[in-house]
Amino acid sequence: MKNHLYEKLDILYDEMIHIRRYLHQHPELSYKEVKTPAYIADYHRSLGHEVRTEVGGRGVVATLRGEKPGKTIALRADFDALPIHEETDAPYKSTVDGVMHACGHDGHTATLLVLAKVLNSMKGELQGDVVFIHQHAEEVYPGGAIEMIADGCLKGVDVIFGTHLWSSFPYGTIEYRSGTIMAASASFEIEILGKGGHGAQPHLTRDALVIGAQLVTTLQQIVSRRVNPIDSVVVTVGNFVAKNAPNVIADKAILNGTVRTLDVKIHDSIEQEMKRIVQGTCIAAGVDYRFEYNRGYPPVVNHHEETMFLAQVAETVPGVDAVNEMEISMGGEDFGYYLQHVKGTFFFTGAENPEWSVTYPHHHPKFDIDERAMLIAAKTLGGALLEYHKKIEGDL
Amino acid sequence: MKNHLYEKLDILYDEMIHIRRYLHQHPELSYKEVKTPAYIADYHRSLGHEVRTEVGGRGVVATLRGEKPGKTIALRADFDALPIHEETDAPYKSTVDGVMHACGHDGHTATLLVLAKVLNSMKGELQGDVVFIHQHAEEVYPGGAIEMIADGCLKGVDVIFGTHLWSSFPYGTIEYRSGTIMAASASFEIEILGKGGHGAQPHLTRDALVIGAQLVTTLQQIVSRRVNPIDSVVVTVGNFVAKNAPNVIADKAILNGTVRTLDVKIHDSIEQEMKRIVQGTCIAAGVDYRFEYNRGYPPVVNHHEETMFLAQVAETVPGVDAVNEMEISMGGEDFGYYLQHVKGTFFFTGAENPEWSVTYPHHHPKFDIDERAMLIAAKTLGGALLEYHKKIEGDL
Amino acid sequence: MKNHLYEKLDILYDEMIHIRRYLHQHPELSYKEVKTPAYIADYHRSLGHEVRTEVGGRGVVATLRGEKPGKTIALRADFDALPIHEETDAPYKSTVDGVMHACGHDGHTATLLVLAKVLNSMKGELQGDVVFIHQHAEEVYPGGAIEMIADGCLKGVDVIFGTHLWSSFPYGTIEYRSGTIMAASASFEIEILGKGGHGAQPHLTRDALVIGAQLVTTLQQIVSRRVNPIDSVVVTVGNFVAKNAPNVIADKAILNGTVRTLDVKIHDSIEQEMKRIVQGTCIAAGVDYRFEYNRGYPPVVNHHEETMFLAQVAETVPGVDAVNEMEISMGGEDFGYYLQHVKGTFFFTGAENPEWSVTYPHHHPKFDIDERAMLIAAKTLGGALLEYHKKIEGDL
Amino acid sequence: MKNHLYEKLDILYDEMIHIRRYLHQHPELSYKEVKTPAYIADYHRSLGHEVRTEVGGRGVVATLRGEKPGKTIALRADFDALPIHEETDAPYKSTVDGVMHACGHDGHTATLLVLAKVLNSMKGELQGDVVFIHQHAEEVYPGGAIEMIADGCLKGVDVIFGTHLWSSFPYGTIEYRSGTIMAASASFEIEILGKGGHGAQPHLTRDALVIGAQLVTTLQQIVSRRVNPIDSVVVTVGNFVAKNAPNVIADKAILNGTVRTLDVKIHDSIEQEMKRIVQGTCIAAGVDYRFEYNRGYPPVVNHHEETMFLAQVAETVPGVDAVNEMEISMGGEDFGYYLQHVKGTFFFTGAENPEWSVTYPHHHPKFDIDERAMLIAAKTLGGALLEYHKKIEGDL
Repeated sequence: MKNHLYEKLDILYDEMIHIRRYLHQHPELSYKEVKTPAYIADYHRSLGHEVRTEVGGRGVVATLRGEKPGKTIALRADFDALPIHEETDAPYKSTVDGVMHACGHDGHTATLLVLAKVLNSMKGELQGDVVFIHQHAEEVYPGGAIEMIADGCLKGVDVIFGTHLWSSFPYGTIEYRSGTIMAASASFEIEILGKGGHGAQPHLTRDALVIGAQLVTTLQQIVSRRVNPIDSVVVTVGNFVAKNAPNVIADKAILNGTVRTLDVKIHDSIEQEMKRIVQGTCIAAGVDYRFEYNRGYPPVVNHHEETMFLAQVAETVPGVDAVNEMEISMGGEDFGYYLQHVKGTFFFTGAENPEWSVTYPHHHPKFDIDERAMLIAAKTLGGALLEYHKKIEGDL
Repeated sequence: MKNHLYEKLDILYDEMIHIRRYLHQHPELSYKEVKTPAYIADYHRSLGHEVRTEVGGRGVVATLRGEKPGKTIALRADFDALPIHEETDAPYKSTVDGVMHACGHDGHTATLLVLAKVLNSMKGELQGDVVFIHQHAEEVYPGGAIEMIADGCLKGVDVIFGTHLWSSFPYGTIEYRSGTIMAASASFEIEILGKGGHGAQPHLTRDALVIGAQLVTTLQQIVSRRVNPIDSVVVTVGNFVAKNAPNVIADKAILNGTVRTLDVKIHDSIEQEMKRIVQGTCIAAGVDYRFEYNRGYPPVVNHHEETMFLAQVAETVPGVDAVNEMEISMGGEDFGYYLQHVKGTFFFTGAENPEWSVTYPHHHPKFDIDERAMLIAAKTLGGALLEYHKKIEGDL
Repeated sequence: MKNHLYEKLDILYDEMIHIRRYLHQHPELSYKEVKTPAYIADYHRSLGHEVRTEVGGRGVVATLRGEKPGKTIALRADFDALPIHEETDAPYKSTVDGVMHACGHDGHTATLLVLAKVLNSMKGELQGDVVFIHQHAEEVYPGGAIEMIADGCLKGVDVIFGTHLWSSFPYGTIEYRSGTIMAASASFEIEILGKGGHGAQPHLTRDALVIGAQLVTTLQQIVSRRVNPIDSVVVTVGNFVAKNAPNVIADKAILNGTVRTLDVKIHDSIEQEMKRIVQGTCIAAGVDYRFEYNRGYPPVVNHHEETMFLAQVAETVPGVDAVNEMEISMGGEDFGYYLQHVKGTFFFTGAENPEWSVTYPHHHPKFDIDERAMLIAAKTLGGALLEYHKKIEGDL
Repeated sequence: MKNHLYEKLDILYDEMIHIRRYLHQHPELSYKEVKTPAYIADYHRSLGHEVRTEVGGRGVVATLRGEKPGKTIALRADFDALPIHEETDAPYKSTVDGVMHACGHDGHTATLLVLAKVLNSMKGELQGDVVFIHQHAEEVYPGGAIEMIADGCLKGVDVIFGTHLWSSFPYGTIEYRSGTIMAASASFEIEILGKGGHGAQPHLTRDALVIGAQLVTTLQQIVSRRVNPIDSVVVTVGNFVAKNAPNVIADKAILNGTVRTLDVKIHDSIEQEMKRIVQGTCIAAGVDYRFEYNRGYPPVVNHHEETMFLAQVAETVPGVDAVNEMEISMGGEDFGYYLQHVKGTFFFTGAENPEWSVTYPHHHPKFDIDERAMLIAAKTLGGALLEYHKKIEGDL
């Protein structure tokens, strides 16, 4: 039955690519997804699945009822894009200025849709139900997961699986990890409220741009001096805007960024140190400020049994050359919310291909994936789904 | 005759305000002026002046022929606006998002147009010709002046006068200075070419935002450590943009700014030090960069005789409470180009009024002027124009 | 027999304190130890031990021959002090200006000497030989261990034990860890070769102090931006000296520091990034520099079997309240060299006592220890020594 | 008579060199001068002058009574050295480690002593009295001048002259300036009170070295952003000491520096901005601090008439190639105090000689002077002294 699934997926690989490229050309920002969920809902409706839209805002949940009794297994794919201007030469390049699927969510969605089609074609033999969770807004806090869960997307679900196509792992690898696999995150926004003026009269101003620059420099000390070196922490200022004519002294500067830790508790001290630095820097400069620190996603903590099961299944998937225990990723994901409610695991599917120069990191303007990774992701998720019932029955 | 001029200007003060406010509501950026020069040209045409448009690009030159013989005197007003988002509550606030007359050029234009109307009404007695030079693009290098001169705007001109309404000098003052009155300027643009990526993976990137911040900080040393403290120098980074999602590490950062000195020659060493700092900082960070340093306007060097003449005339203008010798301003102006070709002087007309909270510096989002300053500017320019012939004849 | 040992140690506790305090009052810097090794050698000689001095430079090795056959077990204590000016109010405060036993090596030595006396008194029953390795220069590269090993201190030794009294672990705890327990270290020295001059003439100089300050700030980016957040790395500049009259601009600045990693290989990239930063910063400033990066101690990697054995022994030591598996320490130690040659383990003995305000970290001017920790250290080392033969014989 | 003076000085040039070199080899720090004032007093006593020692602390005042009636003229030379370690290869190099005549005060003293000898030999013709003010502690606040004045050194004095040998002006030049010639100065001391610890445990510390480095960087903004570019201001941190072992995190850092302005009043806003920066930086870092800002010497403001007189005399001195009006120097001098009480002028005597590599700025470890400048200084001071009476009598 697993082999049957694999063959059917092979046959529909072209459709998978087609869907992925279509979505890639039409990316939509988090919380602004309109056409993407409509596209997904239509696809599932055309397969005859029960479809619920606007789940938790903009999410789509589709259910396929297996004709044999069994557990209810959820598979999750996210579908939002990023405010990045694509710089690839791909024929399927984004058609939306400044918006790009630079994190592979287009691939996640294509993977899940085609897998749904194949599973649907096998529903006569299928044990239990499959819940396809198509999640909006993974990139932006508070994220779609928490809202979709609140709106009942996990109702009746026994176990959940999800994967991330990953351009820094080679094509052909599945990377798993029991326990914490991804970091807890927070976001922050700092606004320096200086006093603007003419570029030739600095003494009549309080130069917000210079203060912001100094702040970025000082914030480096949080990681270098103020956290235990044993703890893994990232503080990134991703956005700095003090936009003016060159001969104008900036009246304000806006900084946004992200913080990653493995331990939710460490955010307390980081928030405190960051507040201290912002406050002190602004006192030194004689200006006011606005500072927000928003706790974000919890860490993704995989359940041990499901993780080891998934790894075992992955070993048998055609095309998988290696199944590795990975290092913790400092990336954040709201998949952790699902795992607070039901058992399951989140894993990475290698999508790097240096021969084709597919090596740019996620969120890079030249990011791309080896599309064949979608096939491996679909086979692994599908294989796990089919095997999971055996596991329960103790046959595995 | 001078008193006659003053009375006529008083009568047309409402029109002056009307024109200024209309222009204030419809600002146009440097080198993008379309409606403003058309408006100016129409006004002069309606007075029957000879009008030349698109002079040196977008400038307008109008000529009024006095019916008596005499010298040809040019009066200049600039008419471009700035990329600043107005934050005043004025009823005549800018209607164009992100564009604002934050330097008073709307007032300069209104002053000159109404003065032109009054002089026109007196042309029977007028000695010599008056050339009204309405200049585009004063705020942006290379500036309209050099282009308009190349296109002949000074042809036949004997002497030139110009003024700047100034919100840091009190209403009722005229500020003059013989010799250097305003600084030589240059502009620069620096682009940090880093390597972007996911906010949680700094080690796979070269964070252009952090490098840019460090650069801003280091550039402060040019003024604090690398120039002779006796020399007056300003280095301002006015624009810093590394615009990304908060969880993205910046692949590039753009910095723009201005440099002011009193001595054109000092720019050589400043350019060299700035290049050194950009290069070294980028080597330290392992990134590439793009650096441009563009020499801008020369200093404005007033001719002694014309300056003292103007100051003397100003003493007699109704409404002028004080005529002061001012300190050198570090601001830049392309008026200096005119003074390289013909004699003349550039002076400041006080437009500050603390009682009405009109105290914000130029280029500030809340900048405004005491509009009555326009009347004083018009009377001073007009008075000088009428008196200048006497001066020549030795009568003054 | 073990209990016998414990009782004898209890009786000699006053002597242990006396020795420790004497050494505390007479600290000697690394590689400058003269009186301390003489003191140690005299003590062992008075016990009739074979004593070798100037081992590997300034080390002392004493051997006690047990009268029964058995394995040869080495116990190691280091004895150098630090260039820190003591700021405690202790009656036994350092009598040497600027030199202080701020790392507990005085306690290590006192522990080992009194333990030697007790073991000597039991030599009739003692199985095998005991080698007391008193090591000089633990605080300064290349360190005494490598030199003493080269000079034969481990000849014939089967296993080695060592401990560190630790003011950040509570009195009453023994902290162990199998595998990597302490970091790999490197030291660096940077000299900025600027151009000095009069404090009022910065433009005629290249201010080494400002450049050094900037360098310190930029070096923070190595940890915050240039290493994998999963890797634990510390970069500390401990020493910054640009010593001049206030009105003199510094011609040079000297910076010294330490780098810690868990993985020796990471030092390659850190050295490269540091070199890049020093070079770029000096190019930006137009100065020369001298940069040295010296690989230091390897990580301390404990042998699993000996570590678990030691932990088991520790459980039975009177006064030990808790035996914990500790987190990796980013501290460095040259004990790792011994473990590259013979089996063994290095552990920490808690010496913190908040009630007596004994809580300052190592290398702090107010550092002190709860002296009772010496007794626990002596009992644990002595207990392990006696038990080790049983372990070999499979009795344990 | 002037020519006679010149000839006698030429004859004693060797003695002048001898004295200067002797003093150069035996420099004494400000407020620690013992042998130098004794040497000076002995020299004058041997000439039969009235000598007062310990004037205002360590100063020496000698009086030569001219045998003809006339005005009382004071000549001043300072005699303290600097805490700089000499790095020249001169045979007369400092014999005191870390102390150096790096500002030419040895030359000032030699000049004045030999001039005294020559004037003494001419006392039969000399009009009025000459007061030789040998001042201690010019380099360190509060400086010897204010103390010597309080102790009566100017009693009966009508006019005062002084000069500085200057290695940045070519040998053969005399540089004068009416009005402000040297800056007002202040000194500051900042102590960062962090929390020290082990170099591998930054999170348990508050790293005073990193905070101090950041402070140095931020202080650059005072000159670059917070003072009017038209005002000449210097802020120099000359001393930064956080002296520790490389593997220790600094518990404190000490910074000392100097501030120069032309206008005493500007110190108010600089002190305020500096306090703001120190306070804010320490809040950002969570540490305490100590901050002192001590007003120093007032500007040196030369009297117009005496200055122009001196310049006129200088034109006639043999060996003087050029007498120039110099730019304001940002250097500080306590000579300004004398000029608050009596008329007079302070001028510079060029002592640079590129051919002999005598080009290092004052306070540089390789500083030296072209010794022939002493002869020019002596002739100019002596010439002025002789001519001054003619000036008074209207003969000049």
